[in-house]
Order: sequence, then structure tokens, then C-alpha cells
Amino acid sequence: MPIYEPPIRDLQFVLHDVLNLPATGLPGHEDLDRDFTEAVLEAAGKLAAEVLAPLNRVGDSQGCRLENGVVRTPDGFGAAFAQVKEGGWTALDCDPEYGGQGMPYVIGVATGELFVSANMAFNMYQGLTHGAYSAIHAHGTDAQKRTYLPKMVSCDWTGTMNLTEPHCGTDLGLLRTKAEPQEDGSYLITGQKIFISAGDHDMAENVIHLVLAKAPGGGEGTKGISLFIVPKFLVNEDGSLGARNGVSVGALEHKMGIHGNATCVMNYDGAKGWLLGDLHKGMRAMFTMMNEARLGVGLQGYACAVPAYQNAAAYARDRLQGRSVTGVSNPNGAADPLIVHPDIRRSLMDQRSFLEGARALALWGAHLIDRSHLADDADAEGLVSLLTPVIKGFLTDKGFDTTVLAQQVLGGHGYVEEWGMSQFVRDARITMIYEGANGVQALDLVGRKLAQDGGKHVMAFFEMIKSFCKEQSANEAVAADYIEPLKAASKDLQAAAMFFMERGMKSPNDALAGSYDFMHLFGHVTLGYMWARMAVAAQAAQAAGTGDAAFLKTKLATARYYMTRQLPMTATHLARIRSGAEPVMALEAEAF
Amino acid sequence: MPIYEPPIRDLQFVLHDVLNLPATGLPGHEDLDRDFTEAVLEAAGKLAAEVLAPLNRVGDSQGCRLENGVVRTPDGFGAAFAQVKEGGWTALDCDPEYGGQGMPYVIGVATGELFVSANMAFNMYQGLTHGAYSAIHAHGTDAQKRTYLPKMVSCDWTGTMNLTEPHCGTDLGLLRTKAEPQEDGSYLITGQKIFISAGDHDMAENVIHLVLAKAPGGGEGTKGISLFIVPKFLVNEDGSLGARNGVSVGALEHKMGIHGNATCVMNYDGAKGWLLGDLHKGMRAMFTMMNEARLGVGLQGYACAVPAYQNAAAYARDRLQGRSVTGVSNPNGAADPLIVHPDIRRSLMDQRSFLEGARALALWGAHLIDRSHLADDADAEGLVSLLTPVIKGFLTDKGFDTTVLAQQVLGGHGYVEEWGMSQFVRDARITMIYEGANGVQALDLVGRKLAQDGGKHVMAFFEMIKSFCKEQSANEAVAADYIEPLKAASKDLQAAAMFFMERGMKSPNDALAGSYDFMHLFGHVTLGYMWARMAVAAQAAQAAGTGDAAFLKTKLATARYYMTRQLPMTATHLARIRSGAEPVMALEAEAF
Repeated sequence: MPIYEPPIRDLQFVLHDVLNLPATGLPGHEDLDRDFTEAVLEAAGKLAAEVLAPLNRVGDSQGCRLENGVVRTPDGFGAAFAQVKEGGWTALDCDPEYGGQGMPYVIGVATGELFVSANMAFNMYQGLTHGAYSAIHAHGTDAQKRTYLPKMVSCDWTGTMNLTEPHCGTDLGLLRTKAEPQEDGSYLITGQKIFISAGDHDMAENVIHLVLAKAPGGGEGTKGISLFIVPKFLVNEDGSLGARNGVSVGALEHKMGIHGNATCVMNYDGAKGWLLGDLHKGMRAMFTMMNEARLGVGLQGYACAVPAYQNAAAYARDRLQGRSVTGVSNPNGAADPLIVHPDIRRSLMDQRSFLEGARALALWGAHLIDRSHLADDADAEGLVSLLTPVIKGFLTDKGFDTTVLAQQVLGGHGYVEEWGMSQFVRDARITMIYEGANGVQALDLVGRKLAQDGGKHVMAFFEMIKSFCKEQSANEAVAADYIEPLKAASKDLQAAAMFFMERGMKSPNDALAGSYDFMHLFGHVTLGYMWARMAVAAQAAQAAGTGDAAFLKTKLATARYYMTRQLPMTATHLARIRSGAEPVMALEAEAF
Repeated sequence: MPIYEPPIRDLQFVLHDVLNLPATGLPGHEDLDRDFTEAVLEAAGKLAAEVLAPLNRVGDSQGCRLENGVVRTPDGFGAAFAQVKEGGWTALDCDPEYGGQGMPYVIGVATGELFVSANMAFNMYQGLTHGAYSAIHAHGTDAQKRTYLPKMVSCDWTGTMNLTEPHCGTDLGLLRTKAEPQEDGSYLITGQKIFISAGDHDMAENVIHLVLAKAPGGGEGTKGISLFIVPKFLVNEDGSLGARNGVSVGALEHKMGIHGNATCVMNYDGAKGWLLGDLHKGMRAMFTMMNEARLGVGLQGYACAVPAYQNAAAYARDRLQGRSVTGVSNPNGAADPLIVHPDIRRSLMDQRSFLEGARALALWGAHLIDRSHLADDADAEGLVSLLTPVIKGFLTDKGFDTTVLAQQVLGGHGYVEEWGMSQFVRDARITMIYEGANGVQALDLVGRKLAQDGGKHVMAFFEMIKSFCKEQSANEAVAADYIEPLKAASKDLQAAAMFFMERGMKSPNDALAGSYDFMHLFGHVTLGYMWARMAVAAQAAQAAGTGDAAFLKTKLATARYYMTRQLPMTATHLARIRSGAEPVMALEAEAF
């Protein structure tokens, strides 16, 4: 069975040494000190490693089954779900008014990494519920909140998001599901939705579907779309469950991965639904939670790769194969362990330098969301809005690549299912697709976020990097190794943004043809910035003689690796961007 | 069901316009003109598209079953195998003395692409047989050849290669399977082999295993290894089948992909075997066919991605989603097809510019092997020996990446198994692993091939590029767009080779830490060279007014895309290489 060790120390390092959690202005959360978060993370890590991780391969090999209209989850999922609920983990960052524990989102993300790493498919039942909770919390009437939120906070009832239809996913303007208004103020929802994660299962009493549909009078395209609450079982006045609603599972999808999660075709046959938020403003309501939802998928992207890396590293330390060229390292063995070989190191360093940078970025993003919600920090909101497509697109692309690198370390053993490496790859693959395919993230970044509020946020981002570099340039212990490479990479990013500004107005395709490269270029600069901040923090602790010396030394060496071996990629992205649209669009559509 | 259209025109373009087949000195094959190869490719393509491709998903979803010690292949495989045999396709490039058709290897590779694209798992039963055939053909006694080859050429008997054991794959010096000499000159083979592709099945009368094992007196490590012929059924003097030998299938591996191929654990319990080639020289015998076998896997790497690309392109032309930013392209539809979007084009162009370059490289490599065998061309042999790790490592890495890109075009539909895109990804993944994992290819390239014969072959490679560029620099129609970028990329490759020479002697880790980047840098330069040659050929045909004008225009535009958007990657690889071993080896093994 694959191993999984919760990286508590790395999470703590980011929360405290880098983000300086209790002191960074999250009103009401000044008590989140090292000891407190350590206790939370230890408890979450124990549950993740001991209960959820052992069920990861079970979920993959058994999958979900549709039996007489009821979805059965894999063996052990139900009992584990009960433990997650009992531990209060579903309520962690929810509103105390509805039974939540009121912790900031950044703590939800930190514990979320542990749960996702242990068992991504399992964690989605809760994750989707959290998304639906947030939507009702933000847009529901008081009555709706009282009816649904307490049960969703506890995960007695779980939630779903219903967007995609067979003929449309990204372009929701094309959707056909209808909502017919009834005299009692409710609607009858009719249509088919596909790819509905956690669409049905046997671990909760009720499932609360949030469904995008078209009500009369809303006009064409996305303008006519509204969001509806459609419970699997209708809820009586007293909160008890009533009749079965007209919604059913048409089929389970057979997928490449996340087999433990029930991905459903949902059929709505005149199901009773209630408007959530304003009529014809469903897209807006759905996308209020977008930053959070997309950050959550970015988190999945790298979290899925964390155990992949850990298993690759363990195998490389253990497996004897070949001899070191610089002299035998294991004279009593028949061969040296794989880890002596430079190319195995190259792979492991690529993996860990990405993962630790990604963790810092996800937690920083969550912290910015907290700042925007708890401290009404408009700059933080603007910044995280800019970073969201980068977090989603870059972390999931690179997270997937990382699982592939990790799988490769095991050779043939990586390809057979027994070792679990194939599952990490297959599970990670979905994160590049759902919650807006990564090409759509790139489009969002270049087509919308760059110019948002007159380009204010991207300018603020550049300014932030610039002043950080200026500040640290005098710090000789970090300037050459960490600050100079960041400066150079940031220059490439600015040059790319400039290219878009100059060319994009006249010829939008020139910007769009480079959008994917730009997203990756932006991702590298952002991870470079994270690594520079981590290096500064590690060096400061080292100088002060605080912290674990070996841990800090490793952090600094890993930072140097990222700067030296990953950041040079910005030059290639810039060169691709500068070639513009011509080579990309040269062929006629028929030539493909 | 996924589509598959055999790319006959592209194959013909490489064979004739680029390699100039009948005129390029393959003695005895001067008659391989355009019409002849067209007829062969059309027939192979018809079989591939109509018989093998429809069984690809069947093989994936059913897999193989082990029933009472007998491996059952998926429905339809047996009948299809009979058709392949009847068509003479298993005998195409085999020796006429044993029933082969005597065509050069390059024709086997060209038709092989079609068969692999249609159904990789199925084609492996034949592919492995061909490898075993080659080994016996090269090293067998006359009696062995007469006994086994005719039946293997016809695939009445199939073959396998048995190298890997549970504790060793790459480092075969560690293997434990024993061969005990008997008085009659045979050996008794005892041990366990794993990951044996096509290890057993129900489509052939007999399976001829080639097994690496240790016979007494050979010494430690790889020196003591010999190669043995171990038939599933013993063969009587008259060629009829005798008793069952002591070899059995212990289990079938559960794999990420290639489910249609039976990957077996093989148990040898005192099985009767006969030495193939010289005692204690088994590694040499096994690796005589290495260039061919590794080229075959490189071929799989890209061939697997060909239908992935075709299905992505078809989906992008068909699926309506969003509107073009430069003006509505499909005013009568609810939306424009995906293919109007620059980022979809970027993906499709990345895919096709790789695939067409890869095809040229594989065919060129096969042609060099033919030159070395048929014309005793030592330069061709040296060159293909240098290129082999690049063909295997680069084409499989990029082939896999290409399947992932293709899958992404379909969004959620790419992730569900129904559309077949997941299978392309899962199948392609193995090619990076078997026949020497790609890290081992990089090590072979940098640690062995660069310095082989005093560096003669790599110098010849640089010289070849240089003189080609010089020759074409005067050709204004191609110089700026195709020759200059190739020159720049080649300069990066030379700089990297120089870095290794200067640093590698003192510090071998400096070379090995950059070996993977070097393999990819070499791959890009080689594909750049292929594209430059294709551009020159296309431009010449265009100028002469021969050939299909639209096809040639597309070829030139795709060449330009590769030069503009792929070749800049060489700079990043060079930067990574130049950073040496320090960042890679900085951590203690315990820190991972």
C-alpha cells in the first residue's frame, strides 16, 4: 500500500514563518498561533493518514455502483465519512451561526491538503458540499439558510453543483435545462446534467443539488440563466424529510480516475426547485464562489501529487539498482539505492521544488481570500482574483506532471496498479479539466484578469515583486541565489504583458495564442516569488538559530533548485508568446 | 467510438519526398517506388482502420483473463490475429529463407505505425515475436533457426523477451534465474520473471520465450548472464509439438493501460531451455537488437498519439462552444466550433508538429538501420546508435504529452472512458517505461553514446546539420524560416555537449544531472532537422508545381510552427544543463 506522511512541518512553515499567520490581520483570528494550528493539523493528519489514505486504493479498485437507482460507495467510505463528520472537519471554516467552527479559510485549505492527499475522491463529497454551502450562504434567503445550512455544515446532507449538459460545458449560454415557475413560488426543473461529482451516494440523508437552468423571460445566452436549489428529498416545514423529488441518477460515468467519487448523469423530470439568488442572475451567483472553488481545485492538483512524491522518494531510497558513478555508496549491498543517481535526484527535486512552492501559493491565495472577506481588503481581493486562474491552471498542470514524474521513478512498478502510482496520475488528471478547463483559465487570465480595473491588479502584482526584490537586494545571504533569478523571471513576465498590451488591442488573437504560455510564465514567477519568500524566512530563522537546522538547510537548497532549474522556463514561454498568433492560426480549419 | 484515419499521405511524403526511398542505396530494394509503397500502406491501413482499431476499446475494457492457467485474450483478438497472419503482415520484413517477404525495416516501421495507432496492445503480440525472431535470426544455430523461425515469421508461434525479475529491471546484473546444464546439452531454467508482455495467450500454438538466466561459471554481475530459448511446448524432431514445458503463468499484472496485452508473471520451474548464442554472453545477444527494439518503442510513443490527435481535431471542428474573438465564424449555429479559439489551435499545432516530426525521425532511423544492415554503412550504424536513446526517450515522452494535450481538448469527455481518449493516455504511458526507462536512455546517450568511438558519431551529427544548413542557407525560400532556427538550436546542443566534455571528465555528475535535459535538447534539434528537411522537400515540390498544393502549404506552416514555438525550448534545456550537479545533488538522501 502506498505510504502517506502528512507534511505538517512544511504547512506550519508556510503558515507561520512565511505568512506569519496570527499577526497578519485576520480580524477575530489573532489566536491562531503555532501551537494551535499544530494541534489542528496533527489531528487532521492522523485522520487522513490512518483512516482516509488506506481507503484510497479501495475506492479506486471498487468504484461506485448504481443499484436500483441508488449509488453505493466503496467499502469503508461510509464509516470514514461518519468519522470525518464526528470530528467536526466538515464544519471547520463554516459560519458558527449554522454550526460551523468559524475558522478562516486558510485553515480549511491547510487541512484540506491533508484530506485530498490521503483520498481525493473521498474528499470530494465534502468539498462539493462546501461549495454548495458557500453559494447558499452568500445568496440564500434567511429561510433557505436555516433550512439547508446546518445540515450541510454537518454533512448530514451533502451538496452538488449542476452546470454541464451533454452539449455544453464551458459555454453555459447553450444550456437547455428548463425551470417553469409555479404558483407557489417554486419552479419545476427539467433537463439532463452530466459529470455531476458526488451526484448521489449512500453516505448522507439528503443531497442538495444546485442547478443552473433557464427560466422564461431571461433572454438568450448566459443572461437567461438562474440558479436553483433542488433537494433529492423535499424538506418539510419542520425540517424533516418529505417526498422524493423528481431527480434521479441516469448513470454513473466510467472515468479515468477518481473512481471513489460518484460522477453522475442527473435527470431532472419536473423536479421541484427554489430560486437561489436573483432571477436570471444565476451565473453571477454561481461564480461568487469561483475564486474559492478554483483555488480548491488548484489545491487538489498539487495535493494529489504529494503522496506520489513521497512514494517515489521512498522507493528511490530503498530500491537497489546500479552503482553511483562517483563511488560505491552501499558497499554491503548488491547495488546502490536509486537515489544516488543524478537523474533520479533531478526528478525528485523537480517534484518537491514544485510541491513546496505550490503549497505556499495555495495557502497564500487562501490567506488573501480571508483578507478580502474578514478585513474587507480590496487589494487582496483584486490580487487573488488575478492569481486564481494561475493557481488553478498552473498548479493542476504541474501537479499532474509531478505525478507522472513520481510514477516514472518506480519504472514498471509504477505502471501496475498494485503500487498505487497509476492512481495518483489518473486522479490528478481531472484537476486540469473540471472547474474550468485550463485553457479557459488561461483565457480568463489574459482576456479578463489582466485588464480588470484598468490593469490595476497586475500592476500591483509587479509592484509587489519589485519592492520585495528591492527590499531583499541588500540582504546578501539571499540576493544572488534567490532574488536575482526572481527579478529576471519577473522581467520576462512584464515583457509578455507588454507584448499583449501592444498587440492585443489590434489583434486579440496575438494575446490569446500566447495565453497558455502566459499562464505558465505567471505560474513560474509566482512560485519563484513564493520560493524567494520561503528562502528569506528560512535564512532568517537560520541566522537567528531558531527552527530545525536540517529542515531550513533543505528548504534553502530546494529554493535554489527551483530558481536554477525551473525558472529558466520563463524565457521559452516568452519566446513562444512573442511569436504571436501567426504560426498558431496559419492553417485552415479543414487542414486539421 | 474513436476515429482513426491512416496517414498514408504523410508516410509517403517522408518515404519519398524526404528519404527518397528507391534511390537511397538499399541494395536489392531499388524497386520501392511510390506506387509500390502506396499499395502496401493502403492495404495495411485498411486492416488497421477496419479490423484492429474497432478492437482497441474492446481490449481496454475487457482486458485479458487468466483461466486455469490459460490466458484468454479479449473478444475478437483471435480472429483479427488470424487476419494479420493471413495478410502476411507478420512476415513483412523477415528473411525470405524462413518465409519472410524480405522488405526493408523501414517498410515494417511505416506499416507498424498504422498497426500501433489502431491497436497498440494487440500489435504487441506480433511486435514481441519480431524481437525474438531477430534474436534467434542473429544468434541461433542453423538447427534453431530452422526449428523456430518459420513458425515465428508466420506468428503460428509467438515470442517473448524475459528480462525483468521482481527485484531488478534496469540492473540485470542482479538477476537470480538459474540455468543448470544437462547432459544432453540443454539447461533447466528456474526462476521468476515479471512484466512479460504477451507472456501467454490463446492466439498461437506455441510461445517461444527468450530468457536471461545465470549458468554456472560466468562470474558476477551481467557477465554471468546467458540467453536461453524456452518454448512453452517442447518441439519434437519433426517440428510437431511435444510435452508442455515447465513454464507457467503465475499471474496477470493489473496495469494502467495496454489491457489487451497479457503482461504476465512467468514461473520457470526447471523448464527445459537451450542456449542462444554464446555462454555468458547473453547481454550481448539480447542487446544486438536493441536499436531496433528501442526504435520500435519510440514508434509506439508517437503512433499511440496519432489517433489521439485525430480525435481531438475532429472534436474541435465539430463541438460548438463560445465565439471567435475576431468575429463570428458560424453565424447559423448557436456557437462557433472550438477550433476557432487560438488556445485550441495552439494545442492542436503542438500535437501535429510533434507527430509529423516524430514520424520523419522514426522512418529516418529505420532507414539508417537498413543502410547499416543492407549496405554495411558503418556511419549509418554509428548515427542510429547515437540517435536510438533520443528516438526512444524523446518520442515517448512527447508522445505521451501529446495524448494528454489531445485528451484535454475534449474537456470532461476526454476524462470519461467512453470517448477513448483516456485509453490513449494510459496506453502511451508505458512507452516511457519499458525497453529501458527514459532516464536510462538519457544515461545511455550522455554516458555512452556521446563518447562512443572517440565522439566520432556526435561530431558527424553536428557536421551533417552544419553542412545541411550551409547548403540551404542560399535557398531564400527556406533560409530564414527554417534554417536559421535550426542553426540556433544546434548551437545550444553543441554548447551543452561542450559543457559535458569540459566538466564531465572531472565531475561525471555534472553531465549526468543534465542528461535528461540533454536528451530532450537533442530531440528538439533532431526534430528541427527533420522539419527543415521536410520544409525543403515541400518547398521544392511547391516550386516545381508537383504534389498536392494544400498538403504542401500545410506542411510548410506546420514546420514553421515547430521552429517558432517548439525549438525555443532548447535554451531552457541548456540553462538547466549548465547549472550542473550542485543544485541537483545538494540534499542528503535522508532529506527526501
